[in-house]
Amino acid sequence: MTVRPSIAHGGRLDEARRLFPAAPQPWIDLSTGVNPHPYPLPPIAPEAWTRLPDDRAFDALEAAARAAYRAPPAAAIVPGAGAQSFIQLLPRVFPARRVAVLGFSYAEHAACWAAAGAKVETVETVEQLASFDAAVIVNPNNPDGRALSSREIAPLAEEMTRKGKLLVVDESFVDFTPTRSVAALTAVSDLIVLRSFGKAYGLAGLRLGFAICAFERAGRLRAALGPWAVSGPALAIGARALGDLRWLQAAAAASAADAARLDSLLERAGFGLVGGTALFRLVRHDKAADWFVRLCEKGILARAFPERPDWLRFGLPAGESAWARLTAALEIA
Amino acid sequence: MTVRPSIAHGGRLDEARRLFPAAPQPWIDLSTGVNPHPYPLPPIAPEAWTRLPDDRAFDALEAAARAAYRAPPAAAIVPGAGAQSFIQLLPRVFPARRVAVLGFSYAEHAACWAAAGAKVETVETVEQLASFDAAVIVNPNNPDGRALSSREIAPLAEEMTRKGKLLVVDESFVDFTPTRSVAALTAVSDLIVLRSFGKAYGLAGLRLGFAICAFERAGRLRAALGPWAVSGPALAIGARALGDLRWLQAAAAASAADAARLDSLLERAGFGLVGGTALFRLVRHDKAADWFVRLCEKGILARAFPERPDWLRFGLPAGESAWARLTAALEIA
Repeated sequence: MTVRPSIAHGGRLDEARRLFPAAPQPWIDLSTGVNPHPYPLPPIAPEAWTRLPDDRAFDALEAAARAAYRAPPAAAIVPGAGAQSFIQLLPRVFPARRVAVLGFSYAEHAACWAAAGAKVETVETVEQLASFDAAVIVNPNNPDGRALSSREIAPLAEEMTRKGKLLVVDESFVDFTPTRSVAALTAVSDLIVLRSFGKAYGLAGLRLGFAICAFERAGRLRAALGPWAVSGPALAIGARALGDLRWLQAAAAASAADAARLDSLLERAGFGLVGGTALFRLVRHDKAADWFVRLCEKGILARAFPERPDWLRFGLPAGESAWARLTAALEIA
Repeated sequence: MTVRPSIAHGGRLDEARRLFPAAPQPWIDLSTGVNPHPYPLPPIAPEAWTRLPDDRAFDALEAAARAAYRAPPAAAIVPGAGAQSFIQLLPRVFPARRVAVLGFSYAEHAACWAAAGAKVETVETVEQLASFDAAVIVNPNNPDGRALSSREIAPLAEEMTRKGKLLVVDESFVDFTPTRSVAALTAVSDLIVLRSFGKAYGLAGLRLGFAICAFERAGRLRAALGPWAVSGPALAIGARALGDLRWLQAAAAASAADAARLDSLLERAGFGLVGGTALFRLVRHDKAADWFVRLCEKGILARAFPERPDWLRFGLPAGESAWARLTAALEIA
């Protein structure tokens, strides 16, 4: 048993199992924002497993991602082993002293910048970000779903570009609302847009994500990632899935319907909706901590926030049996 | 089409196809040191694809790797996305000014240290390494197979530990001669031992490798890698394969037999054996460059070395049809 970096994350089912050994099986994990209806795995050629990934495989993936994400021709698209791999890398490749993250957000941004020696602050408005050496906007935001338009982000991107500063827009949860992406801004400003593959496509174990940015920054990211930063299966599956617009549209619709269904369940149980995306809902309750424990006792793992004890975040149940168990658990009160 | 970092590597079949469009199909790729008889893929649980890899999966892999690599209890074992991912990371996590690599060797070590700003030298003896801030030994060496014993490396490891310097021993090709591993030295010295999974197990596309080192260095590597640096399939397949000692022993024997067969073919064609491991053979020929082209025209890709135009490196053919084509191609002369 080894101690690993221990930021509170979703997906810690192993810990929940240890703490609530009497909970009914199987556990229902609603603690992440990963689509519970994954993209169907295509057949994978043996070479994807056996050979070192070659340029052809990278080119195919990058072309599919470029089209899917509508990356402008003036920008590069860099694949890596998950959006997280870029979050780890950015502070080392583009060092900055004073870094700001917009609002309460995904904790890894602040943690990785701080680990690299930066002084990290949380600010409440987009305007405040401009005075820092590097700024991070998660958009739509995790966990509250706060979404800024391209129009709201463009002036900041322009100002930071003019000052030679770094703006990072983490679009890990934008896939189901693609018109909200600010990828087009990379044609005119020097920002870095991060995309996650695993969340919307329900394949978080695959480890695949992208940075969209100017070619100069892309070159430095590629050099830091090295020649084979993405696995053969991830290259093959990613290229196939990102080219499948029909699946994406159907998944977005299904996810939106599930999110609405989840909202009404949670509201009936007395939770107040704070926000969210089509893949997770953030709710408020004075007794959120009690609810968290009660749900664990029923074998249902939500996501709690130590910093905001009145919040719980719920991902989407995977099927009718999970919906039924969640419905029953929420009716106990 | 995107320009990526372009160190000459094996496995560039796509480039060979472009340059020799008339070559017979399929190409026989002998340009890498990857075992052409891969570990048979076990069934992969859906959760390995869909969920974020959890501690349980990491613990299982680390336990299997610890046993397989005989890592001492006093050392940590850190999984990453290939030995290459550690080669990329080491210069950023453990910066050094003057770095030495022993002999002509795998080019990525020098390239990654240089990219991080280090002054890198190639030295010819183990003793010379001790005066540098960081030293790299690839053991057994790629491409010439030069192998140092633990007894030869131990005094250097001890001296560099005493001076607070870094010694890296890259054991990417040690799997089939496991008694040559210096992993045991990590119990008494502060060196970092790198292991590759993909080469011996023939699954280079999987992206899996390890660092074996003291817990303090391991903690810094883990922090830089972040929480999900290995894919779910790699965790599952790696844990299964590393626990299968019988397969490893059979693969080592088969590989040694193939290496001997390859040697006699090459010698009959007039090549002189320089060295190698059971996964690749390095040979010398005054007309090596001509041979390289002639083999390409036959759809066979060897590995050439721009710095050593009289060398060629050959990996092992995958089956009788490949052996027959190689035999025929070598008999032309």
